[in-house]
Amino acid sequence: MDKERLKKQLDFILEVDKEKTIFRQSHLSGYIRQENDAEHAWHMALMIYLLKEYANEEFDLAKAMMMALIHDIVEIDAGDTYAYDTDALRTQKEREGKAAERIFGMLPSDQKEHIKALFEEFEEGKSPEAKIAHVMDNLQPLLLNDCNDGKDWRAHGVKREQVLNRQKSSELGSKDIWEFTKELIEKNVMKGNIKK
Amino acid sequence: MDKERLKKQLDFILEVDKEKTIFRQSHLSGYIRQENDAEHAWHMALMIYLLKEYANEEFDLAKAMMMALIHDIVEIDAGDTYAYDTDALRTQKEREGKAAERIFGMLPSDQKEHIKALFEEFEEGKSPEAKIAHVMDNLQPLLLNDCNDGKDWRAHGVKREQVLNRQKSSELGSKDIWEFTKELIEKNVMKGNIKK
Repeated sequence: MDKERLKKQLDFILEVDKEKTIFRQSHLSGYIRQENDAEHAWHMALMIYLLKEYANEEFDLAKAMMMALIHDIVEIDAGDTYAYDTDALRTQKEREGKAAERIFGMLPSDQKEHIKALFEEFEEGKSPEAKIAHVMDNLQPLLLNDCNDGKDWRAHGVKREQVLNRQKSSELGSKDIWEFTKELIEKNVMKGNIKK
Repeated sequence: MDKERLKKQLDFILEVDKEKTIFRQSHLSGYIRQENDAEHAWHMALMIYLLKEYANEEFDLAKAMMMALIHDIVEIDAGDTYAYDTDALRTQKEREGKAAERIFGMLPSDQKEHIKALFEEFEEGKSPEAKIAHVMDNLQPLLLNDCNDGKDWRAHGVKREQVLNRQKSSELGSKDIWEFTKELIEKNVMKGNIKK
């Protein structure tokens, strides 16, 4: 066993523990508190497995799940960027690129390249795995928000067009989930949770 | 699309959100607070992927990761059982069996059977996937405890024999991680974090 290699891997594993302290705008069901990135990633990976039958294309399950598990690690340095914060969205790419370099750079070089490529593939959103991971990245907070009677949407005065824009990448990964999403959005517009 | 089927899947997905409120004895790095089950499962699944080279046997990556992601869902009903609480350990199996029936029973019947079998396979600990999942279930809190200078061990007055007993299943999944584990335990015995 290469002890130096294992040490690097374990240092990375401890470093990413910090993801449990990065809070998102979304609240848990019951609106008890905001959700953190590790919880969101856990939920997403589990959803990829359980809802794989709705994917438009065949995909590599373990690869898509790992993509979900690591897709927010850069936020340890770069912070969470709220989906409807246009100022923060402008600097997001640069902040997250630096974070990827530092954090994934803690791994042995072969794994650094592999995990960084997985993160970039997710960001690009073009491969079958990235597309299905984005479906779950969209659907997970939508379900939470819906079960909380839209409290997060109402708090931010979010409009239908913004939600549709944020969610539209789901169509690329799953036409079925996209249909479900549109219905759920309309239901929340009718209820006044999302502005017209 | 079978809407009834999707509804069952999404009801289950929302139900397991509660796992984010089940707290373990282990504390996060920096000892800032106790860790919850969803965070622990996220960490474990990620570790299976990153440390797969140390497994004694070939295994199915997505299956082992999903096993990690769902292995504590029963604690939504049954609560967390501390590894060194002998009274709670006695009733654990029965409490968790009932919980598995109710919670996994929310899924469509084919998925209920599949996920419940995955959970039982983990509990049994005999398949290559179950063995590597147990390695990470053991290693993850060990790393946190070690980086917190053994505060959780000291709080509970835990003895070397107890830790070795709790950790020994790691040898079945990874001889390399087992070697690392024994060294880490001895280091903490030397420091007085674990009693002789």
